[in-house]
Amino acid sequence: MSIVLGPNQYGKAEVRLLRVDRDTARHRITDLCVTSQLRGDFRATHVSGDNTGVIATDTQKNTVQAFARDGVGSPETFLLRLARHFLREPQVTGGRWRAEQYGWQRIGARGAGHDHAFVRGAAERRTALVHADDAGLTVLAGVQDVTVLKSTGSEFSGFPRDRYTTLAETDDRILATDVTAWWRYAPSFAEAAGPREFDERHAAVRALLLTTFADLHSLALQQTVFAMGRAVLEAFDDIAEIRLSCPNNHHFLVDLEPFGLDNPGEVFFAADRPYGLIEAAVQRQDGQAGGEHPVWATIGGFV
Amino acid sequence: MSIVLGPNQYGKAEVRLLRVDRDTARHRITDLCVTSQLRGDFRATHVSGDNTGVIATDTQKNTVQAFARDGVGSPETFLLRLARHFLREPQVTGGRWRAEQYGWQRIGARGAGHDHAFVRGAAERRTALVHADDAGLTVLAGVQDVTVLKSTGSEFSGFPRDRYTTLAETDDRILATDVTAWWRYAPSFAEAAGPREFDERHAAVRALLLTTFADLHSLALQQTVFAMGRAVLEAFDDIAEIRLSCPNNHHFLVDLEPFGLDNPGEVFFAADRPYGLIEAAVQRQDGQAGGEHPVWATIGGFV
Amino acid sequence: MSIVLGPNQYGKAEVRLLRVDRDTARHRITDLCVTSQLRGDFRATHVSGDNTGVIATDTQKNTVQAFARDGVGSPETFLLRLARHFLREPQVTGGRWRAEQYGWQRIGARGAGHDHAFVRGAAERRTALVHADDAGLTVLAGVQDVTVLKSTGSEFSGFPRDRYTTLAETDDRILATDVTAWWRYAPSFAEAAGPREFDERHAAVRALLLTTFADLHSLALQQTVFAMGRAVLEAFDDIAEIRLSCPNNHHFLVDLEPFGLDNPGEVFFAADRPYGLIEAAVQRQDGQAGGEHPVWATIGGFV
Amino acid sequence: MSIVLGPNQYGKAEVRLLRVDRDTARHRITDLCVTSQLRGDFRATHVSGDNTGVIATDTQKNTVQAFARDGVGSPETFLLRLARHFLREPQVTGGRWRAEQYGWQRIGARGAGHDHAFVRGAAERRTALVHADDAGLTVLAGVQDVTVLKSTGSEFSGFPRDRYTTLAETDDRILATDVTAWWRYAPSFAEAAGPREFDERHAAVRALLLTTFADLHSLALQQTVFAMGRAVLEAFDDIAEIRLSCPNNHHFLVDLEPFGLDNPGEVFFAADRPYGLIEAAVQRQDGQAGGEHPVWATIGGFV
Repeated sequence: MSIVLGPNQYGKAEVRLLRVDRDTARHRITDLCVTSQLRGDFRATHVSGDNTGVIATDTQKNTVQAFARDGVGSPETFLLRLARHFLREPQVTGGRWRAEQYGWQRIGARGAGHDHAFVRGAAERRTALVHADDAGLTVLAGVQDVTVLKSTGSEFSGFPRDRYTTLAETDDRILATDVTAWWRYAPSFAEAAGPREFDERHAAVRALLLTTFADLHSLALQQTVFAMGRAVLEAFDDIAEIRLSCPNNHHFLVDLEPFGLDNPGEVFFAADRPYGLIEAAVQRQDGQAGGEHPVWATIGGFV
Repeated sequence: MSIVLGPNQYGKAEVRLLRVDRDTARHRITDLCVTSQLRGDFRATHVSGDNTGVIATDTQKNTVQAFARDGVGSPETFLLRLARHFLREPQVTGGRWRAEQYGWQRIGARGAGHDHAFVRGAAERRTALVHADDAGLTVLAGVQDVTVLKSTGSEFSGFPRDRYTTLAETDDRILATDVTAWWRYAPSFAEAAGPREFDERHAAVRALLLTTFADLHSLALQQTVFAMGRAVLEAFDDIAEIRLSCPNNHHFLVDLEPFGLDNPGEVFFAADRPYGLIEAAVQRQDGQAGGEHPVWATIGGFV
Repeated sequence: MSIVLGPNQYGKAEVRLLRVDRDTARHRITDLCVTSQLRGDFRATHVSGDNTGVIATDTQKNTVQAFARDGVGSPETFLLRLARHFLREPQVTGGRWRAEQYGWQRIGARGAGHDHAFVRGAAERRTALVHADDAGLTVLAGVQDVTVLKSTGSEFSGFPRDRYTTLAETDDRILATDVTAWWRYAPSFAEAAGPREFDERHAAVRALLLTTFADLHSLALQQTVFAMGRAVLEAFDDIAEIRLSCPNNHHFLVDLEPFGLDNPGEVFFAADRPYGLIEAAVQRQDGQAGGEHPVWATIGGFV
Repeated sequence: MSIVLGPNQYGKAEVRLLRVDRDTARHRITDLCVTSQLRGDFRATHVSGDNTGVIATDTQKNTVQAFARDGVGSPETFLLRLARHFLREPQVTGGRWRAEQYGWQRIGARGAGHDHAFVRGAAERRTALVHADDAGLTVLAGVQDVTVLKSTGSEFSGFPRDRYTTLAETDDRILATDVTAWWRYAPSFAEAAGPREFDERHAAVRALLLTTFADLHSLALQQTVFAMGRAVLEAFDDIAEIRLSCPNNHHFLVDLEPFGLDNPGEVFFAADRPYGLIEAAVQRQDGQAGGEHPVWATIGGFV
């Protein structure tokens, strides 16, 4: 029984790229962290150190930077360009290109803001991923760590009680999470969309995730997670599937009774660890023929 | 020559406190990380483990939580309450209370936003510190890690060239930093201000730091740092002093010539380390009699 | 076309558990971070907030803590106990239990070390994972972030040069990485092994990974990664497969020529980002019938 | 009342430097993170952007790298070289040079270990700092984040109980901390010591900190902190002062009674935040004439 190389990929991770569009005095900036990973026939380098087919990770980084010279567009279109470029090499049969985008706002709230001075927005990131295999290209878009909190409108009760259950039921708790989501575009959208369509769609999905989180009276974080995903699929026919991973950032009501005080939902301790972790895919019923889409195995965690 | 206990302090660090003001259906939330540190006559516990005078750090945490029951107000007023409480104990002769505040916005950009659902804003934090010693109470306010960037309007040239100098002069570079600043309120303001005054003043100083960063054509990050500080002191008579610590977050223009491309200030590599680090105090001329204010020794770094 | 719940899991993440074995004056400590995630019939909570079947994540945490009362044994056996416990519930049809273990050494290098005082060892962690689905239980063991470096004995050349290639070939470079590996035990081993066998096996695999890294004259990090995996499979018949994820922690030779100095491989700049990322599975040839083992989709990244 | 520049410093932070000594086949590596900060007459750049006197932070980085060509020696001697170099410039009247050193061990426990392959040791770092002002050079050495834990031999009781006290007294608890310490060498030692003396002294102080932590039956973390400092001053006449900053990494005994189990000091929850924080200086009685040594104001926190 011989020992063989199984699935493998390699590339350059976390290329930090700032692109400035300065065709007018009113600059626009795009701030990205790009990872390029190639798959294909790379047996020789693994088995014998023969690098004849190995597109150096340094070359991948250079390619990211050189391509930015022509503009980034949206993260999705930029990754698609990279994917198509590398897939031209015969030894490359697949790959995975990923970007995180950091948000910036113009300084100066009054009026239109400054022409070339910016302040970083929220810690959350916009994400994009292009996956290539024999079946073609798949485009995911997402958000990472959108931190949200409801100070009421959340319950948790009716769960089973066994020997190890001590949690009290509650009809009013704080619900807080960092939303990480990936949604998969239907091929029809992924192939036709340009930067503007990808940008607008991303903004619309993010807004819908937030308002669904806000508006649903929550009986469980699971219910909120599913509702967020369902709302997105209901609103956008060309999103095939969405997966969410949401920690339950516990905020414990502090017992102030020892100090002679009540605490009617006003003083909370924000805990670090442990935390709940709720992960779910929301899908269209006919979308599952043949099992899960292979892109999800590259994301990990919530499959 | 005997060995003795020198300066010392102890307390509870990073109490994560969420306060919900829910007197109406339109909730307000205050999200803080509070550290309480006491100084005084704590020789016995150090030398012999006699804890007779040691206000337990757990008690300090409880006090933070219990005080939040009455509302937080502004971070500065909350820390002042804590300081005055602990200073009532005879063995406590001083201390240091510090808070970081995380920003939240209401979900729902249209209209007034949601009543009880929020999304976290920028990674930057508002900071406050109350310092107590024999001379009384001192109040600092600040910002931490306000990340800003100018895509033009920044030069760096005219510096000396020695054997180890390779940096090229430039008349157009990206200037990016994470502004950390602490300003010290004059006693008159610190004693009279209520939560609203502290909040409004903080917002005004932060805005002034941003617009000064944006508007100054910068010949050196040092010049920008000093200008930001000077603008604050010029605008507000009751701010006695301000100190800023600003990394120079280098964005290097990528050399695209090997790929047959020019790069007229459009594609940059955002470096992690090393980074420049510019730190300065901006003061009023008569404010320095008797040396630096002792509060700064507790901040570290930029003194 | 209706919208449905797809794959999902939930649980409590990062339960920080310290177990002290104090049956004699010579204490032993086990320091773990445990995550429990359940899969099964949890449709009701997602769709309607009906929590009848939801074993609370708080209950999962309590179970971890209560089980530790009987001793931890090895991480693998502890996770197996948890898995079997939760799988007794009819609604639970699978799950994923994960542990990280932190290393501690006795203080006092001379002799046998202190009875009950310890100092933390390397930042690397020992990892374990038990995965349950319809096909039964699968046990993975691993290491995370074992940081290693060779100051010579590493080359990289012979790679193709295209328009975007600028990297010079080298026959002597620094090779540095943080080894993260997961290996899957054959069912025969996983079912029969006790804590001692799991511990000894883990130590043996870790040692083999290190010596292979050290001894191989490397022509590419890919070659080193594959050799590490092959060495493990060759040495241990009851390890079915191993997957490695290894960043290439670049150390760039500093150009000292501008300062009139040579640099014969002595002064290096340790870069943060970007970094190479090499990921590969090493398998037994007949082990792949039916495609990849489903456990890998839960790890993410290197499949 | 005019607005003026107060104390200021600038430089390059976190230059990641790896030095390989390869004069024989048995390589030695030194892995450092170096920060250089200059003080002096830098008013012009702050006030008007005139950089005539500004030694570029890039030049400071280059100098660190070029100096490493001659070998690093110990961190202390390397920083002293840098300090003396920069102080030759007339506009530089002081400064602060800081290093963190990462530990590496040879791979291969058997025998003497590998000639050129290494594995990273503990997360703790050795630290060094050289401070220059009108009074001359001061050398500090230190350790950062030496994580230690005692599973018994620690009590905490006898503390006062007020309205906000709920903590129970205990005669057996876990004591865990991350020791950060800085000690100041007497000028006589600092001037005469070479790399070997600095290395040996550092190892001796670290060992003494650990054994004191281990051996003292602790009635309070304050007592342990003071004892660690006193042991160092007692053992080494040429250490003038030492300051320690030690979080109390709480490990809470888990209440297993709801599950029908006792918990005789065996199962603990390792908490993240909040944590106690104990900071103290240990000094020689005659060492304080004229107030605290100015170097401490640059460290921050525990003064």
